[in-house]
Parts: sequence; C-alpha cells; structure tokens
Amino acid sequence: MKLIIDLMGLDLGPEEMMYGILNAAKNSKLDFVLSGPEELARKMVSESDVDINRFEFIDTNEYITNEDDPARSIRRKKNSSLVLGLDRLNEEGDGLLSAGSTGALVAGGIFVTRRLEKVERSTLTAFIPNQRGTNTILVDTGAVVDSKPEMLSQFAVMGSVLAEKYFSIDNPKVYLANVGVEEGKGDVLSKETFDLLKENDNINFCGNIEARDFLTGKADVIVADGFAGNMMLKSSEGAASVLFGEIKEVVNSSFLAKMGALLLKSSLKKIKDKYDYKKVGAAVLVGLRKPLFKAHGSSDRVAIEHAIYRAEEYIGSDINKYIEERL
Amino acid sequence: MKLIIDLMGLDLGPEEMMYGILNAAKNSKLDFVLSGPEELARKMVSESDVDINRFEFIDTNEYITNEDDPARSIRRKKNSSLVLGLDRLNEEGDGLLSAGSTGALVAGGIFVTRRLEKVERSTLTAFIPNQRGTNTILVDTGAVVDSKPEMLSQFAVMGSVLAEKYFSIDNPKVYLANVGVEEGKGDVLSKETFDLLKENDNINFCGNIEARDFLTGKADVIVADGFAGNMMLKSSEGAASVLFGEIKEVVNSSFLAKMGALLLKSSLKKIKDKYDYKKVGAAVLVGLRKPLFKAHGSSDRVAIEHAIYRAEEYIGSDINKYIEERL
Repeated sequence: MKLIIDLMGLDLGPEEMMYGILNAAKNSKLDFVLSGPEELARKMVSESDVDINRFEFIDTNEYITNEDDPARSIRRKKNSSLVLGLDRLNEEGDGLLSAGSTGALVAGGIFVTRRLEKVERSTLTAFIPNQRGTNTILVDTGAVVDSKPEMLSQFAVMGSVLAEKYFSIDNPKVYLANVGVEEGKGDVLSKETFDLLKENDNINFCGNIEARDFLTGKADVIVADGFAGNMMLKSSEGAASVLFGEIKEVVNSSFLAKMGALLLKSSLKKIKDKYDYKKVGAAVLVGLRKPLFKAHGSSDRVAIEHAIYRAEEYIGSDINKYIEERL
Repeated sequence: MKLIIDLMGLDLGPEEMMYGILNAAKNSKLDFVLSGPEELARKMVSESDVDINRFEFIDTNEYITNEDDPARSIRRKKNSSLVLGLDRLNEEGDGLLSAGSTGALVAGGIFVTRRLEKVERSTLTAFIPNQRGTNTILVDTGAVVDSKPEMLSQFAVMGSVLAEKYFSIDNPKVYLANVGVEEGKGDVLSKETFDLLKENDNINFCGNIEARDFLTGKADVIVADGFAGNMMLKSSEGAASVLFGEIKEVVNSSFLAKMGALLLKSSLKKIKDKYDYKKVGAAVLVGLRKPLFKAHGSSDRVAIEHAIYRAEEYIGSDINKYIEERL
C-alpha cells in the first residue's frame, strides 16, 4: 500500500513533517510518495534507519496557503505540492495525507480525486475521543455547508460504515445534531433530514442529540451540516483549551496550588491526552474514489506519526467497497 | 419596578424558585407578581422577613412543559402560569422571568408581548463568561433558526447596545460566528450577513470569528443564527462538564491525586464558578416591548437569585429606548 504525502502546509514546516513520517515508517508497512522539497526529504530519509527504496519523491517548493482561494488554487497552482500529489494519486497509490489548507483538500477531492459514483458530496469526517474512551464519528466537520437533507442522509450511512468497519462497533448509534432532542425541533434542514434518517433502513437512527452530548459518547455517529459540525468541534476544542489554560494559571498562583498540581500532574495530563483529537490522527474525506487525509495544521511529529497509522488502517479496511454496497 | 415571575418550570420545583425569589427580594428594590401555586407562595413569603406588600399573586397550577408544542400551548393553555404572567405583563410590570420551556417563552414573546416596532425578530441573548473575566454577548442562542441576514444584522445592533449600556463596554467588538476568519468563508447566510454587517455603521464590526474563540473574550458580541449559536453554547457547556467530570474521577483514583486535589480544590472551584453561566443569571429575549428573562431549568435558588438581580439591572437600564434609536 502506498500513501502520498503533501510535505507542505504544516505550521512547523516540512522538516517536522519528515520526522513524523520517518517515525511512522519504522512501524508501518506503507510505501511513500513525498511531494515537496526533495533535497530536504531525501537527505532526511538517507540519514535515517528507514529503507530509502520505500520512498519516491516529487520535487516542488510551491504550495497552497490558507489565504488562497481553494477551488481556484487547485485549478491554477498546478505545481503545488498538493496538486502534484493529487495527480499522482490518480495514477497510483491508495490515499493522500496533507496538513495544509482544508478548503484546498476538499476542492481537490471534488475536482481531482472525484467522488464515488453514488456519492453526492464527500464529507470531512472527524473522530472525536469521547468520555466513554471510544470515538464519536462526526460527519460533517466543514466540507459541506448549505447541505441538503439527502447529503446528510448519505453522510449518516458513510459514518455508520466507518463505525462498523473501522472501529468495529456493532449497530452504531446514529444521531442528528439539533437544538433539542424532541422530533420536530430545529431548522428546516434538521426537520427534513430527521424524516429521511428515520426512513433510512441502512442505519440505526436514534433521534436528535444536543451539542452538550457531543463528548459524552452517547452517539457513535453524529450527523450535522458542516457549519454546525464545525461549531461543535471548535467550541469543544476552544472550551477545553481555555479550561486547561485556566488550570495552568491558578496552579502557578500559590505554593499550595503548585504542590497540589504536582500530585495531580499525571492525572491531568491523562485527561488532556484522552481528548486531544490531534493525537487521534487525521480527519478523512470520505466518499471519494480514494481517501484524502487531513492532519491539523498545528500538528507536531507525534500527531503526524499517528495520522499515518490511521491512514494505513483506513486504507487497509476496504471502506469504499462497503460504502458502495450500502448507499 | 415590577417583575412578574413564572413559578413553574424549574426542575427543582416552585419551592426552590421561591427561596431564590425571597433571597433576592432582600437585596432588591423590585416588586413582584408571582404566577403559580398561590398557597405555597403566600405561605413562604409570610414566613420570611420580606414585606408581603411587595408581592401580588396569580393562582394557578397549570403550566407549559418542554414536551408541549410552544406556539400551540401559548394559544391554548390560557391558565398556565406563563400565559397568565404574560397577560399581566401586557397590563403592567417591567419584565417577566421564567425557568420553563424556552420555546414557549419565545412564542409568548412573539404572540403576547410582541416586538418593538422596528424589530423583525427578537433574539434570545446569552451572557457568556469569558477568559478575560468579562461577558461575551451571544445573539442568538436559539430563538431564531433559519434566520435571514437582515435579522442577524439587527441582532448585531441589539447585542452592541446591550454591551454598551448594560456592560458599559465602549465601542464593543462585534464578530460573526463562522467556519473560518477570512472574508468569503461560510454558508450563504454567513456571506450575506458579513456584507450587511460590514456596511452597518451602527456597530463596530470586526469580521468573522471561529467557534474556538467563543470563550476567549476576543469578541464582546458574537452574532450567529440560533442553530449555530445553540451548537456553540451547548458544546462549550458540554465540554466543560465532561472535563470537570473527568477531573473529579481521576482525583478519586489515587491517594496522591486526592491530596493534590485537596490543595487545588478552591482554585478549581473558582474556575468552575467563573464559567458557570447559570450563575450569570438569565438569558434575555431582546427586541420585545418588554423584556422576558429565561433562567436555566436546572437552576437552583442561587441561580434564580442572580437571575433576578440581572433582570433588575436590565429593567433599570432603558435598553429598549437605545435599541429603538439605533435600529
């Protein structure tokens, strides 16, 4: 199996990306195509313990930034690391990983990689660590805004297949994100989607879920328009970050608090790690002919390493075949 | 000034509501009209130190539940504590507080209390304690889903007036909740709203804000469709609750952790209190001829007491006059 990796786009730069790749390569059976500054990449592989024959290189220094218009840059920046990588993926390879612009990756999926035949829109799927210690699958986290009920219904099926085949959850519980739990709540999109999900025999639809249950693990799959999903994901992320920031601050405010924190340190770190979705790896664009993996732009080498393991598992799990059967 | 209070709808029951009211009455100059079980209410006032001449009573045991259809129950449950209270508010009094069904209160605002002349829709406004130690005003938190750009533009003005007149913030920073900070991001509603806010001379519009900044205090006012606002508010609430739950759990997992927690206890409680939006009081339906205040259904007497102080401040601040001038 071969993973194509866009070396550009990580906040910490391509060198950090390379450290993550080389660490993962030691434990992974993947072959790699690296799209980015070849000299740096080749040098770092050569100096490592990893067999350079597992690597191919596409040399470029051009890349797509978060400020570029996603669709336009996919069409025009033909020599960017992402577009060269996507072109290669159309020829060979099993998936592509990038830590760059989400919008560009989504546009690349639409215009270059293209969707599975029955799929109306692909969905950026996140795996959210929850209180139960499992993962809640969120579809969609921002690939599709202004979605139609039919798209959300397809997302529900794709999320459900992922829960079954990737996380081995039997009969995964699918919920619709809404402002209240009762049937009939919400905006026009929610109401129409609720009706479609209720009729959909290919999923175990359990009703509406409120955003306050996002992290509790009540749901195996949460279906949401990309705008709402993005609000849920980033609010939770923000709240956690603010609270841990506050804890850090009070801990430094007095001697007793410092002592207390010392004793609690490992416990607090465990909690932080449990919910650190960067460590979970990457989000996946699901519904394309080949999967595209999106790592957080602020990932470090550890996050990239885990993103690669996740990609390897995903590629090996035949998800697309199951999705095509179920849609 | 006179506040009408719906005694029903609190999870803990009307007795808890009464304790909150009586505690607040000691520090407040308000008169009260209490709509609910008169015998209980009258007895508790009589047994307290508070002058019973400050109270009037509307006797009823009927009330609107969260399961009732909001609009229909406002029209049909004529003897419910809420509808009787709203009818009285149309005759006299300066505002109404309820801890019952949010939907019913919103419907009551539309059909009974009615909007200010220039206001297209009223907005359920929440005051979110933020990292800076101030409050971020969120408009809307769920009164209006499927909103139009013009409504959100009015919400921005109303939120801005509140920030100025109620929290004494000069030139409050108004942001639009969106999936990215760059202009041009988001769904159709966001893009059209962005353009309106940019042109609106009555506010200090600062651009898009991502949900991860919801609690940081970057914004004084955050404008969002009620669906998105609800997602932000409840996700943050849920994340905080899950994290504090986890901390509690690890603390009990070992002797050292217990010792640590003991030393940190007051610090952790301070953080919890800082972000406990129940303690902030009530959300307000803004844009009506008279304000309706919504306390959390799970409030205890302390939360109700603070909700009453908030209502008193609000009533005394002439917000409606300023809103009418600015719209």
